[in-house]
Amino acid sequence: MLFANGDKVLFTGDSVTDAGRGRPVGEGLHAGVGTGYVRIVETLLNVYYPERLIQVSNTGNSGDNVVSLKARWQNDVMNLHPDWVSVCIGVNDVWRQFDSPSIKSQHVYIDEYRKTLSELVERTLPSVKGMILLSPYYMESNREDAMRAKMDEYVAAVAEIASKYNTHYVDLQAAFDKYLTYRHSSFIAWDRVHPNQVGCMIIAREIMRSVGFDREFL
Amino acid sequence: MLFANGDKVLFTGDSVTDAGRGRPVGEGLHAGVGTGYVRIVETLLNVYYPERLIQVSNTGNSGDNVVSLKARWQNDVMNLHPDWVSVCIGVNDVWRQFDSPSIKSQHVYIDEYRKTLSELVERTLPSVKGMILLSPYYMESNREDAMRAKMDEYVAAVAEIASKYNTHYVDLQAAFDKYLTYRHSSFIAWDRVHPNQVGCMIIAREIMRSVGFDREFL
Amino acid sequence: MLFANGDKVLFTGDSVTDAGRGRPVGEGLHAGVGTGYVRIVETLLNVYYPERLIQVSNTGNSGDNVVSLKARWQNDVMNLHPDWVSVCIGVNDVWRQFDSPSIKSQHVYIDEYRKTLSELVERTLPSVKGMILLSPYYMESNREDAMRAKMDEYVAAVAEIASKYNTHYVDLQAAFDKYLTYRHSSFIAWDRVHPNQVGCMIIAREIMRSVGFDREFL
Amino acid sequence: MLFANGDKVLFTGDSVTDAGRGRPVGEGLHAGVGTGYVRIVETLLNVYYPERLIQVSNTGNSGDNVVSLKARWQNDVMNLHPDWVSVCIGVNDVWRQFDSPSIKSQHVYIDEYRKTLSELVERTLPSVKGMILLSPYYMESNREDAMRAKMDEYVAAVAEIASKYNTHYVDLQAAFDKYLTYRHSSFIAWDRVHPNQVGCMIIAREIMRSVGFDREFL
Amino acid sequence: MLFANGDKVLFTGDSVTDAGRGRPVGEGLHAGVGTGYVRIVETLLNVYYPERLIQVSNTGNSGDNVVSLKARWQNDVMNLHPDWVSVCIGVNDVWRQFDSPSIKSQHVYIDEYRKTLSELVERTLPSVKGMILLSPYYMESNREDAMRAKMDEYVAAVAEIASKYNTHYVDLQAAFDKYLTYRHSSFIAWDRVHPNQVGCMIIAREIMRSVGFDREFL
Amino acid sequence: MLFANGDKVLFTGDSVTDAGRGRPVGEGLHAGVGTGYVRIVETLLNVYYPERLIQVSNTGNSGDNVVSLKARWQNDVMNLHPDWVSVCIGVNDVWRQFDSPSIKSQHVYIDEYRKTLSELVERTLPSVKGMILLSPYYMESNREDAMRAKMDEYVAAVAEIASKYNTHYVDLQAAFDKYLTYRHSSFIAWDRVHPNQVGCMIIAREIMRSVGFDREFL
Amino acid sequence: MLFANGDKVLFTGDSVTDAGRGRPVGEGLHAGVGTGYVRIVETLLNVYYPERLIQVSNTGNSGDNVVSLKARWQNDVMNLHPDWVSVCIGVNDVWRQFDSPSIKSQHVYIDEYRKTLSELVERTLPSVKGMILLSPYYMESNREDAMRAKMDEYVAAVAEIASKYNTHYVDLQAAFDKYLTYRHSSFIAWDRVHPNQVGCMIIAREIMRSVGFDREFL
Amino acid sequence: MLFANGDKVLFTGDSVTDAGRGRPVGEGLHAGVGTGYVRIVETLLNVYYPERLIQVSNTGNSGDNVVSLKARWQNDVMNLHPDWVSVCIGVNDVWRQFDSPSIKSQHVYIDEYRKTLSELVERTLPSVKGMILLSPYYMESNREDAMRAKMDEYVAAVAEIASKYNTHYVDLQAAFDKYLTYRHSSFIAWDRVHPNQVGCMIIAREIMRSVGFDREFL
Repeated sequence: MLFANGDKVLFTGDSVTDAGRGRPVGEGLHAGVGTGYVRIVETLLNVYYPERLIQVSNTGNSGDNVVSLKARWQNDVMNLHPDWVSVCIGVNDVWRQFDSPSIKSQHVYIDEYRKTLSELVERTLPSVKGMILLSPYYMESNREDAMRAKMDEYVAAVAEIASKYNTHYVDLQAAFDKYLTYRHSSFIAWDRVHPNQVGCMIIAREIMRSVGFDREFL
Repeated sequence: MLFANGDKVLFTGDSVTDAGRGRPVGEGLHAGVGTGYVRIVETLLNVYYPERLIQVSNTGNSGDNVVSLKARWQNDVMNLHPDWVSVCIGVNDVWRQFDSPSIKSQHVYIDEYRKTLSELVERTLPSVKGMILLSPYYMESNREDAMRAKMDEYVAAVAEIASKYNTHYVDLQAAFDKYLTYRHSSFIAWDRVHPNQVGCMIIAREIMRSVGFDREFL
Repeated sequence: MLFANGDKVLFTGDSVTDAGRGRPVGEGLHAGVGTGYVRIVETLLNVYYPERLIQVSNTGNSGDNVVSLKARWQNDVMNLHPDWVSVCIGVNDVWRQFDSPSIKSQHVYIDEYRKTLSELVERTLPSVKGMILLSPYYMESNREDAMRAKMDEYVAAVAEIASKYNTHYVDLQAAFDKYLTYRHSSFIAWDRVHPNQVGCMIIAREIMRSVGFDREFL
Repeated sequence: MLFANGDKVLFTGDSVTDAGRGRPVGEGLHAGVGTGYVRIVETLLNVYYPERLIQVSNTGNSGDNVVSLKARWQNDVMNLHPDWVSVCIGVNDVWRQFDSPSIKSQHVYIDEYRKTLSELVERTLPSVKGMILLSPYYMESNREDAMRAKMDEYVAAVAEIASKYNTHYVDLQAAFDKYLTYRHSSFIAWDRVHPNQVGCMIIAREIMRSVGFDREFL
Repeated sequence: MLFANGDKVLFTGDSVTDAGRGRPVGEGLHAGVGTGYVRIVETLLNVYYPERLIQVSNTGNSGDNVVSLKARWQNDVMNLHPDWVSVCIGVNDVWRQFDSPSIKSQHVYIDEYRKTLSELVERTLPSVKGMILLSPYYMESNREDAMRAKMDEYVAAVAEIASKYNTHYVDLQAAFDKYLTYRHSSFIAWDRVHPNQVGCMIIAREIMRSVGFDREFL
Repeated sequence: MLFANGDKVLFTGDSVTDAGRGRPVGEGLHAGVGTGYVRIVETLLNVYYPERLIQVSNTGNSGDNVVSLKARWQNDVMNLHPDWVSVCIGVNDVWRQFDSPSIKSQHVYIDEYRKTLSELVERTLPSVKGMILLSPYYMESNREDAMRAKMDEYVAAVAEIASKYNTHYVDLQAAFDKYLTYRHSSFIAWDRVHPNQVGCMIIAREIMRSVGFDREFL
Repeated sequence: MLFANGDKVLFTGDSVTDAGRGRPVGEGLHAGVGTGYVRIVETLLNVYYPERLIQVSNTGNSGDNVVSLKARWQNDVMNLHPDWVSVCIGVNDVWRQFDSPSIKSQHVYIDEYRKTLSELVERTLPSVKGMILLSPYYMESNREDAMRAKMDEYVAAVAEIASKYNTHYVDLQAAFDKYLTYRHSSFIAWDRVHPNQVGCMIIAREIMRSVGFDREFL
Repeated sequence: MLFANGDKVLFTGDSVTDAGRGRPVGEGLHAGVGTGYVRIVETLLNVYYPERLIQVSNTGNSGDNVVSLKARWQNDVMNLHPDWVSVCIGVNDVWRQFDSPSIKSQHVYIDEYRKTLSELVERTLPSVKGMILLSPYYMESNREDAMRAKMDEYVAAVAEIASKYNTHYVDLQAAFDKYLTYRHSSFIAWDRVHPNQVGCMIIAREIMRSVGFDREFL
């Protein structure tokens, strides 16, 4: 498993990551890492690797797109000196194009998205042990849905960037697509974006797979 | 226009109708008829037919399906002695089959739906001037989506019942389908069910059409 | 219809415009444009012109008179670079003379009102496609009521300014006067100023007429 | 002055009397008699007649008309065994005809008003030392305003009843009419009904006059 | 009566004056002048002198003693340019010596009190039409009570200052002493300091007397 | 010390005893015995007699006088089967005569007080190991204050009853009188009734003395 | 895995099970099954067995011991007709003996515990497919701690009952003991009773093991 | 007894000292010194030494360790010019090593603890009459518990420092150890750290002993 004793692992992104985390940095007792997938990842690390002390931090911020994430990257990522950085961004970049089509200042189109995310990766890699890029997703199984189709472009961009920079990559869209063959999207998220605990567990499982979880579950 | 001076018009159904209406009966000042489509209908009647006094009441109840609606029909419809009854029910009958598949007590399948709604219509018609049946809907343009496909059966059932009993009929699914050719469903409802004001205005317009609105808009 | 695809339309004024809008600028999801006439205008544009993307913003501020509006004009109007500006101001300029007669610092008399509003119009016209001036009003049908009589002077001033600068003009006082021949003022506003949804729809309809609404209502 | 040492004086009516009084009976410390005219009356009695102990109670109830007042008369008046009863009712009987014209169940027309109020007076007089009838009012100086004109009928009815049964009578409409020659109605009540402290003091002064206040003010 | 049409009258002091007034300056609609004696004074002026417009402002501040009052005098008195200033200070200067005897930083002894209040009067008189000094008080009829005895020194100091500078003077201690011959102190204030409405009316009456109230009460 | 291992000790009375205790019976974790003198007694027992388990319960009720206490005596005392009962009642019986002189229904005069308290003692003694009567008090050192003078009668009545029935007796008035020779009454209670922690500790100490506290304090 | 498609699984017990579940029965959307171990179990079933529909319900109740659980067993277990019942009770039975030693009514000693739990099992087994008994626990690794030693008796009793009636058995004490060899008890629960998410995951894992979880974790 | 008339005594530390004290400095009426052991100390001084005025202040701050305490020492201790300083710090320095083992930034190890506390003592002694060092503690009677064992090192460090600098010293660990021979730790604190009133009284008693309390308890 990637994370060694003493490592500091930082998760960042939008509301899917935020999930009510503490401010200014989501970690430790009380407010902690929020109630989303980051908490499940932290819990699994503590339950299955109790002999390793791994510091999990969360600086996800509700409403963020890749541009607003970039604006706080120095403060919320670099200055915290993590060993590992996991980032999940892009949902709002696409969503606002569909739920707020007339407010163009809130849209981030594919070129700016690709360019900005690449910059963040380039800037970060030299000072960390590794990065984990989580694809954005839309829990919509109809690939012809306009927003799903658009999201697929952003998913592809993340895959490309992960490949180009040789980071870890988690294809959340594929994971949800698979689950949606069993259950309707409304079972895991009424708005097809914000996952309930089932959705969070699916995300956490994919992250665990990506980082080489190697213990017996039972 | 159907509603005459002095008529009492009752709207009932689930959360789409409820929309925060006052209790026990949604009407009058303050809490009034809620903030959904019923308020827009009431507003249009007051603005365009100021010379007629039409009493608008709302007994929609969040979470209701046709079975729970039936349980309160005597109290919330018959005892209020309306001249006209508009009912919009069925969304939850279908939704729970998809977002809560294991809790079968909350599902209402098509036969029970058809039978129960028919009973309500039969029981009510003799004491009113007329009824308006609003189809349920799912703001999902992909007709192969499992929940949309299931909803179409319920929409068809309402159309049949309206035809059989010769009531007014409003096909909300068709109205939303048409609008979705212009805008993505997330523009009018993140969960594809609860309409924002744009969605409410679409519903209200269809109701106005159905009752024979005949004034100049400007 | 005046507003073209891609246009940004800004509404500003006092509490009648504000109506609980989001801060710092009222637009987009959630807090949005408030619950008053601006929302109805935005809704009608979205329902009837779905093929045009028109950005609607609201910077009305409760309690403002034309002087306090001027103080924030650069920030709340010019800096937002709207294509169209609609302004409705003057109610508080007059009202405070009657409900707070001894607090003269809150009164704006007719000359200062006319001069200040003219300045705002002059300053704005060069950088927008057009302006819409909404008259203030008092939902009082008795023209000899002291406050109504005073308000009529301010209404006349707006009409003059609109004429002089060739802007669009909406005479809300006339619209309400007409409606008050059918219903008592307490039906649309207990305090004869803050409109309920019926009053908001009347305002929205007059604005729609003014901007050349040209679709079928049904 | 009418009220003797040891007398119990009960005020009842609608929201103008209620003014946030304690439940079930508004008297004593803390919640007490509310913050409206009853409190001013009680205060004046305590300041100017400190040698007399006069128990002041308030059972006004927001929203009441004469019919709903009758329904609770046994509990909220007779059972409390007052020596004096002051009643101010009628505003809502009229107001609902204008702000809610289509909801006829909330209207109380003049004949029912006169008959019901007469019944309450007849039923009460035998067991009290005296009654004080306060006229309803509308702080509208234009007597041709439809609601003011209607209110005048109710005011007249109270005057008649007071005369017929020989009770004390307070013409609040006249008192406010006089004050409105100096200040605009919005100075004492934005909705022309619910008085601010200036309005409450005017009511209290008229009551003091009616009961024979006979001390030096300074 | 001292206050002429157009005059601005400012009341300042401690919690007895504050009484929940609006911030930054207590005046006008809504938050207004609080719910204490200032509101009664304002109400009486409006009821009995409706032909004069007298602006009443309140900058009392809970917890203040004469030293903390001095610290904000420029901002809360001088900068507001009042025509008349009424000040009631000294209760906390004394009270803290008894309820917090070990916290000397909160005590203001008689010499500092006299000197500081004198300074405020000297500084203010040149720019106002007149000042009204209200004595502090303790609603304790036992003159041998240690706190009452101490308070009497402060009352005397205010009387001296008023005499020396020829300001208006209101002896609240005497007014309460007289009332306490009729009722127990717990009737007007459980803590013998913060007056209920009866106590506020007594204060307001003394102020009215001091400023030459000259209208008929009824 | 009176209380043996396993004993159940019940404290009851008015707000001085209540002090925010849990409902329906104040004992155990969380809400527990409130924050007044009962908590200090319980704490001292637990700190100094850790080898004895003594159950402390509190059924004091804010606002009670001896008559309302009697009405709940069966439920709040007898049914709880205490070994020891401590009661402190009488403050409100007297206070209401002074702060609410016109509301006679809230007064309990000395004869009824003496008779009712005697009944409660007679009724209880046969089923308990002993009773502790705490005198009421008024933290007023001036014995000529009308309320203090009246309270002295009630204090005397409790002493008589304790003597007649041979119960334990705690003279709280004497204890406070002694303390008031050092500090002003406002130091322990602004309203001369509700003790702060210093006052509660004084009460607790007197109770400890009465029950034979026999451990080293340090 | 024990639970088949269509099975209804009920979890009951005290606050450890409750964890903020919905009322009257914790299941379905929104309030759902709370935020404790039941939610993790439900989540794992939904993630790993999406092809089976298993209804999970929670009727845990904070503060319960086996006696209060018995009092509601008919309503909260039998009447819900579950296929499987999991029960975790006993923590409060023991805890109150240590944190509230003098309040014996809240203690449940070992004999009554064993007898009552046995009764519940006997009464339930005939109408279910199976039961899962979870041992109580105290996250205290020192077996000589008085409360831990006492808890061990209760743990043993549950093991015996499970063996006697041949139910499934989960030894939570053993699971926590093992974890405490890695981390201090304060890491999973400040009070050594209420588990954080790490503790809940440990409980859920043990339940999963007990019911024969047989899928790949990754 | 150490504290003389007029002395100012300051208590500082972490949440055990803080206990909800007022900000910025905990003293005086209302918010005061919190509800923990400082209040009991202040109460005992006021009850038993009423002839001395001793100012008690509290600047404890929840969550502090010795490092964060040092950061505010100038502002919260030196600038207040106390005569005596009592400090209780160290619980969080140790606790975070066990409940948050992976967040090393919140740990303070023994060398830094000893060095920092020594600095604070050295810096303070020259300007005060004396200091009282309270040991940290863990209400855990098992000395082999890892956190207890670690805490013992910190307790020893405080004892050493007190000895080296000749300050007063209070061994709270010893006091609690003694009490735990009678009652289980859960009786005084569920988390073995934050004392209930019994625990606070134990702390206060030890402080009283340390400062030479010399009055009769009864």
